[in-house]
Amino acid sequence: MLQVSIKRGREKRIKGFHPWVYKNDILSFSRRPKPGELCVVRDYKGAFLAKGYINPDSYIAIRILTYRKDEKLDLKFFIKRISEALEYRKGIVPSDSTGFRLIHSEADYLPGLIVDYYNGYLVVQITTLGMEVLKDKVVQALIEVVKPKGIYEKSTVQVRELEGLPLVEQSLYGEIPEKVVITENGIKFNVQIIGGQKTGYFLDQRENKLLFAKEFVKEGDRVLDAFCHLGGFGIHAAVIGKAKEVVAVDSSQLALDLAKENAKLNGVADKFQFVKGDAFKVLKRMQQEGEKFDSIVIDPPAFAKSKTVVEQAKRGYKELFLRGLKMLKPGGNIVVCSCSHHITPPILEEILLSAAYDTRIPLKVLYTTYQAKDHPFVLQIPESRYLKCIFAKSFPWEV
Amino acid sequence: MLQVSIKRGREKRIKGFHPWVYKNDILSFSRRPKPGELCVVRDYKGAFLAKGYINPDSYIAIRILTYRKDEKLDLKFFIKRISEALEYRKGIVPSDSTGFRLIHSEADYLPGLIVDYYNGYLVVQITTLGMEVLKDKVVQALIEVVKPKGIYEKSTVQVRELEGLPLVEQSLYGEIPEKVVITENGIKFNVQIIGGQKTGYFLDQRENKLLFAKEFVKEGDRVLDAFCHLGGFGIHAAVIGKAKEVVAVDSSQLALDLAKENAKLNGVADKFQFVKGDAFKVLKRMQQEGEKFDSIVIDPPAFAKSKTVVEQAKRGYKELFLRGLKMLKPGGNIVVCSCSHHITPPILEEILLSAAYDTRIPLKVLYTTYQAKDHPFVLQIPESRYLKCIFAKSFPWEV
Repeated sequence: MLQVSIKRGREKRIKGFHPWVYKNDILSFSRRPKPGELCVVRDYKGAFLAKGYINPDSYIAIRILTYRKDEKLDLKFFIKRISEALEYRKGIVPSDSTGFRLIHSEADYLPGLIVDYYNGYLVVQITTLGMEVLKDKVVQALIEVVKPKGIYEKSTVQVRELEGLPLVEQSLYGEIPEKVVITENGIKFNVQIIGGQKTGYFLDQRENKLLFAKEFVKEGDRVLDAFCHLGGFGIHAAVIGKAKEVVAVDSSQLALDLAKENAKLNGVADKFQFVKGDAFKVLKRMQQEGEKFDSIVIDPPAFAKSKTVVEQAKRGYKELFLRGLKMLKPGGNIVVCSCSHHITPPILEEILLSAAYDTRIPLKVLYTTYQAKDHPFVLQIPESRYLKCIFAKSFPWEV
Repeated sequence: MLQVSIKRGREKRIKGFHPWVYKNDILSFSRRPKPGELCVVRDYKGAFLAKGYINPDSYIAIRILTYRKDEKLDLKFFIKRISEALEYRKGIVPSDSTGFRLIHSEADYLPGLIVDYYNGYLVVQITTLGMEVLKDKVVQALIEVVKPKGIYEKSTVQVRELEGLPLVEQSLYGEIPEKVVITENGIKFNVQIIGGQKTGYFLDQRENKLLFAKEFVKEGDRVLDAFCHLGGFGIHAAVIGKAKEVVAVDSSQLALDLAKENAKLNGVADKFQFVKGDAFKVLKRMQQEGEKFDSIVIDPPAFAKSKTVVEQAKRGYKELFLRGLKMLKPGGNIVVCSCSHHITPPILEEILLSAAYDTRIPLKVLYTTYQAKDHPFVLQIPESRYLKCIFAKSFPWEV
């Protein structure tokens, strides 16, 4: 196997269980590396550190799969990793939820691999050349461990192009339906497997949707779901929280159509008002028209995809939070989210605080949460925490 | 009423709902202030900002009670504030818990006042001269709103001396028993009202104890409860989590005696091993003897009571976390806590990460939580967040 030595001092990250070796960290190769092949990583003195796969042209040149010298990267290895991942999910995904993330890439120490489970079907996404090379073993291991009805590959993210990979969408095993109905906290959702965004659905807000509906929405509430996508928060609010009325805003007609379909599927379509448009403009207009809500959720897409745009993103979030706070009834509840890794928990708090200062609304913070636990946050991999939500309640008095 | 003008620029904190005016912020008085009297706070141009009480010799000279010009600081005001606080607790304290914090000082906009509810009885703590002056109104309002069987004052914190107040412990209303049994998440706990530490019990870990017992402890687990105090985490683990064995460590014999009593009260005393001693030394010895646990909680007292000792406190926490991690079985669960405001959430994470690096144990963070919601964290008052817990799970493999 290819042997890669890394520079003195650079072994710390590896020993600390961060699974990346940067191109810059590499000292020497035992021979010319083939893109995507397996390799052993050693420190500058030659001591074993880890095994992984290499793409020598990538900024992140090596991604680690194991830290054990005695572990072969064969079918057995993938069976072990996938079994561990499944075992972990069994402990944390409630039985009334038939959709969950089974493999979350680096955070399950299977970098470059994302696998979502949708009621018996698996949707696989491969983002690196190294994992592409290992695909057959992964698929075989998934069949053995999960025994799915079908496996569909949806490797359609742009980042593949950086690894020299084409975008592909194809069936890998079994029969694949175009759509699958899953339950999330007992609520039905249509998931578009063939076509559709990302791996079909956003599973990472499952716990936050339940928390919102159970703890924040009261019977008879008027709810605002900004950036509603497939209607997750709003439908939870209507079904579990018994909201009277939900105003759901999204810029995508496709998303709104699917959200409407999902609302119908759960018998709450009559409670919904769907508004198509840019949430910045829609919320501004609604606020100027004097609309008021008992509970509000603002779950925008990632505004800060890189560190350089954090300041700009902060302004975007703040504008939305300001609009939300201005439409919040005294004693009302608001949830604000950010799915950008670069917007850290203290930054999100700072943005909300700044909006609360400007609107003169004192807020109690009841929960600070992250992505659902089937999208693990590994303490040693800061990049694995990306979604943050603050659940806040305004004081019941006006000044 | 005394009128106090504050310097230009210093009105921002008040407008932003932080309830403190520092001695340094004050520009002028309408007359010589009497310690503890009510006052109106105005900006440098004379515009109304807020009403509160003053202790001109204190570093925090004024504490705000209301931001409304039209609000008189009479009995009606206290009835309103206390009613709001009670209403809020009704929404967040589960019905199987008969002990909760009713008033959390600044975070309920009643600075200087702490009131705990123990199954029909109230324990009041007054920490400022201004609130001492208002005590009769507060007690009258508490009787009216809560209709308690008795009210006991336990104003025994050292900070009173800074305000020129003596330490007092006395009955204020009704009949006071020496001990009261409360339920916390359905578990019985003896609370020592007369005598005993602080207001009698630590209510702020209620939600975290439940989370630990429900989500982290599995049937048959061996559990370590370091700094067990009255046995809260351990007894929850034994009763709700069905732990097989709990090792509970504390340096206070009184605390251990009460913990044993509480374990008996819930029929789980036979599962307990109580160890009296300095947790630093006890954990070191246990680790060296090769003891292992499925789940561990480390809930030390505040090591960082001021900003200057943060570095020293970090070393203390890290040592404890290292010991804990070394005794954790692969796939085991650990909860680490800090109740020092100066140990911010990112600092606590950094300490745990540092211990995880040193022990080479990869950790998934499943929850980051704070004090129970009846001890509110007001976003505008950073000081109101003090307790932080990280719930982490180790990966099931050893390196």
